[in-house]
Amino acid sequence: MLNNHHYCIIMAGGIGSRFWPISRTGMPKQFLDFSIQGRSFLRRTYDRMKVIIPEENILVVSLERYREQVRTHLPELREENLLLEPYNRSTAPCIAFATYTILKRDPDAICVVTPSDHAIARHDAFNKTLADALAYAAGSDALITLGVIPTRADSNFGYIQMAGKPEKGQPVKTKTFTEKPDPELARVFIDTGEFLWNSGIFVWRADAIRQELEKHAPEITHLWKGWREVLDTDNQKAFLERIYTDMPRISIDYAVMEKTDNAWVYPAEFRWADIGNWESLYDYLAYHDDQGNALNRTARRLLKDSSDNIVYSTRDDKLLAVRGLKDFIVVDTEDVLMICPRDEEKLKDFLSQLAMPEYEEYR
Amino acid sequence: MLNNHHYCIIMAGGIGSRFWPISRTGMPKQFLDFSIQGRSFLRRTYDRMKVIIPEENILVVSLERYREQVRTHLPELREENLLLEPYNRSTAPCIAFATYTILKRDPDAICVVTPSDHAIARHDAFNKTLADALAYAAGSDALITLGVIPTRADSNFGYIQMAGKPEKGQPVKTKTFTEKPDPELARVFIDTGEFLWNSGIFVWRADAIRQELEKHAPEITHLWKGWREVLDTDNQKAFLERIYTDMPRISIDYAVMEKTDNAWVYPAEFRWADIGNWESLYDYLAYHDDQGNALNRTARRLLKDSSDNIVYSTRDDKLLAVRGLKDFIVVDTEDVLMICPRDEEKLKDFLSQLAMPEYEEYR
Repeated sequence: MLNNHHYCIIMAGGIGSRFWPISRTGMPKQFLDFSIQGRSFLRRTYDRMKVIIPEENILVVSLERYREQVRTHLPELREENLLLEPYNRSTAPCIAFATYTILKRDPDAICVVTPSDHAIARHDAFNKTLADALAYAAGSDALITLGVIPTRADSNFGYIQMAGKPEKGQPVKTKTFTEKPDPELARVFIDTGEFLWNSGIFVWRADAIRQELEKHAPEITHLWKGWREVLDTDNQKAFLERIYTDMPRISIDYAVMEKTDNAWVYPAEFRWADIGNWESLYDYLAYHDDQGNALNRTARRLLKDSSDNIVYSTRDDKLLAVRGLKDFIVVDTEDVLMICPRDEEKLKDFLSQLAMPEYEEYR
Repeated sequence: MLNNHHYCIIMAGGIGSRFWPISRTGMPKQFLDFSIQGRSFLRRTYDRMKVIIPEENILVVSLERYREQVRTHLPELREENLLLEPYNRSTAPCIAFATYTILKRDPDAICVVTPSDHAIARHDAFNKTLADALAYAAGSDALITLGVIPTRADSNFGYIQMAGKPEKGQPVKTKTFTEKPDPELARVFIDTGEFLWNSGIFVWRADAIRQELEKHAPEITHLWKGWREVLDTDNQKAFLERIYTDMPRISIDYAVMEKTDNAWVYPAEFRWADIGNWESLYDYLAYHDDQGNALNRTARRLLKDSSDNIVYSTRDDKLLAVRGLKDFIVVDTEDVLMICPRDEEKLKDFLSQLAMPEYEEYR
């Protein structure tokens, strides 16, 4: 029996370009499928949440430009539950929009907020953690982040320091938030045992986050004056166009979580991956052959004298025949072929060159 | 004023697979354009010949399967001048077919026979050579091959040994034909000064080659019994279907030129290239950047830390971004991406693997 006061906010407005040319401004990661499941990150996020949250309470926040793509990936999503921002302004404005919408519909709502482009495994542990967190949030003003027990000193993630020892099934107060520490600091974090990875998944009462937003991020909430009159009406779109012109770009971590006295973290036991860079994509890709090549499919792929490459094609019916490459990234899409050493610096430098205006049409 | 008894036979039935995946069984080399001219080899062959031969006397021999492609490349070609073989049986059957067709139309015809997938430069010298050869052939039974003065010991070509010293504007008797000698032998050939490259372009009276075919290649000509009744009639297609079932696969060099007493060679001064392998394609491609990369176009190509590669795409609107490759061949077509070291042995071995039945759909 799902709780009718439980809501989910799926944040699906990212315009990620880190996986260019796989991801594009017109096709960001949430709409991609790196797995063998044949479902996009967004689709899998929705399917994961609907086990816990009543479907009529699942809201997706995305951008106007992605309207059709969200519809394609989630045909059953209710029209009124697709919230479209005119521009992406990071997570705090996105959460404010969804929170006000939910509050108008249900003042007693308790929300799960989740990114739409992460990978989660061990769904039983995930469901248990969320159930515990929802129960805890119902009786408090706590702003709960799900924290992932780290397995390596990865400098691409955010870290949350716990203020004490966690007890089973209970959240613990947070002490600090650190976004992408350098590798040495990440190492120190891991060694202390006090730090968790910030999964970007939050649980809180809608009214609790509203109060904290209004307290710590008035530059956002003052734009929302009159929200109760316009949300879920024909005036909403024009209202959004107007307020988003001035909306600051700011993350929820920076806007609220690092400032509030009510930040808690819940050590979770599910497996989680952000897949925010090519190395994590290498790990996550569906197929790995015995030469250490990672592929998004194996049929129609012939790799000879080739090892430790990422070979990715958006075309299932295309034959990729590769010989003599080691530690390369080969990405073939409809309009871009990229071949580059699998070396963070070389790749970064090459991608920045490819981001020049002369290649604008391929963004 | 062009001579109405002059004919040209353009052989355009090749099913070359040496440039797979650029060339295909459905798109052999004669239909490709490696140049900056925007014209296929076939188109350029036709345009070259129509300066010398009346257009109504230019015949193209190709395969039934290539009917539409020839039509596309040569829309002005007369229907009755497109001769379609049911199967490719090399050059001797192709020449027999065209020769009988021409003889029925004009018993006094003098023919130029030319491949459709070679590159020719210095058209003034080419025209002069052909004019001389046509004039010589008119008054004799000579079977004349145009010989190209060799510039290197290339073991991919056929060599013709001259029986004596050539005189300006005159053909010289041939002594031997050698197809693709090994590199050492090719070196010896070049050093003697007695050898010319076999251009595959022939000049002869139609009746002369007919007699020599009937004498040296009866296995072909006996199938053609009754040709005068069927050619250029509605019965032709069924007749061809029938006789090609038994038609031997044999080149004109092997069937006639190596056996006849009437083989002559005409040392020509035009520039000629067969472009029969990847190394000659490297030389011939339209663009070479200052890192020694050969490309079929430069727009939408970003090559960084990359040198001495062949980078070829059939797609003008696709961005090819390549970093860190040296001495590779990168070919990107609609349905195949091939990346392979530019090494004859590795390439040959890789292509033979790609010719396996499991990749049949990509031939």
